[in-house]
Amino acid sequence: MRHFYVKSTKGMTSGEFNINDTAGSAGRLDIIARCVNAAFWISHSLRTDVVFHTILFGPPNSPIYIKIVGKKLRKVQPDERNISIFLKKAIERFEEDRVVETTPGIFASRKTFEDVIEEYKDCDFYLLGEDGSDISDCDVSENAFFILGDKEDLVDEEVAILEKHGAKKVSLGKISYLTSHCIGFLNVYLDRKN
Amino acid sequence: MRHFYVKSTKGMTSGEFNINDTAGSAGRLDIIARCVNAAFWISHSLRTDVVFHTILFGPPNSPIYIKIVGKKLRKVQPDERNISIFLKKAIERFEEDRVVETTPGIFASRKTFEDVIEEYKDCDFYLLGEDGSDISDCDVSENAFFILGDKEDLVDEEVAILEKHGAKKVSLGKISYLTSHCIGFLNVYLDRKN
Repeated sequence: MRHFYVKSTKGMTSGEFNINDTAGSAGRLDIIARCVNAAFWISHSLRTDVVFHTILFGPPNSPIYIKIVGKKLRKVQPDERNISIFLKKAIERFEEDRVVETTPGIFASRKTFEDVIEEYKDCDFYLLGEDGSDISDCDVSENAFFILGDKEDLVDEEVAILEKHGAKKVSLGKISYLTSHCIGFLNVYLDRKN
Repeated sequence: MRHFYVKSTKGMTSGEFNINDTAGSAGRLDIIARCVNAAFWISHSLRTDVVFHTILFGPPNSPIYIKIVGKKLRKVQPDERNISIFLKKAIERFEEDRVVETTPGIFASRKTFEDVIEEYKDCDFYLLGEDGSDISDCDVSENAFFILGDKEDLVDEEVAILEKHGAKKVSLGKISYLTSHCIGFLNVYLDRKN
């Protein structure tokens, strides 16, 4: 299984945003939508071996953890607007004390970053950043769990949690890329290695 | 300079579509918008060494050729909706007998595929497809011009034009990827080689 986690630093935790303004009023949920596209879509199909994770840290009800499971995902189209509609449903259907499958393959619940990392502690964690070892020097495992920021990097406390779990810092080069482009590159790069 | 051409098989050639339905009424202009995002954006900046080309072949006024020049591009945001707004402006401001800079860095005119290839005949053409030589076996030149389909491949007449100009067939692997993901991968792959 291949995991991607993207932190949504300002992603709104109420569904009361304008679906036509996800780059504004929704706290850059457009970034998360593009990452979901990059994580799952291939031509005429979805990657069934990918799980995508995000935690929305924006107001008014953070953190909301959203998990998207490729092999269960249904109905979603690859365009940003359609993916955003499903993210909005996940936020609206979130409930405080249980995991809700808000639409097929999409799950919302109350979890912290530490909860998520702890739950997947058997994976091998890779923190993306320009100061890491080049991806070509990393022997990426079958059970890789990649961690990425959105427009902002992870904070020190989150990096410390990852370090405790043996995360390796990995770089795609000296250029700083959009998070969605990192995910898209990693998917094709890993396909080509296997 | 790095060029990407994406054929828009059904892209509408009238601006009378709903900007909230680019995946439907606009003839899959959502695909073109995602390709533009993949072609130009890096974190906090745009690639100034990229030119993006598309020809819209949908009704009612095809073909409309749109060229986007990275070093002149201004005002556009990376989200699909915003890019689509600029594509819509390009279509609306198109004029029959001249090249119109519809917004900074975006140019619309009446050109056929053959016109475009002829204009860029000094470039080295690479036709993307699963049956090509693997990209790692290709010595991609500094003046590369990549040609991609959208949901549909190029037709035989277009492939013949490319063959006449010495195009090489290039593959990213056995999996068929979304066009935008091919562009995103190529950008990072070529950055890493240089």
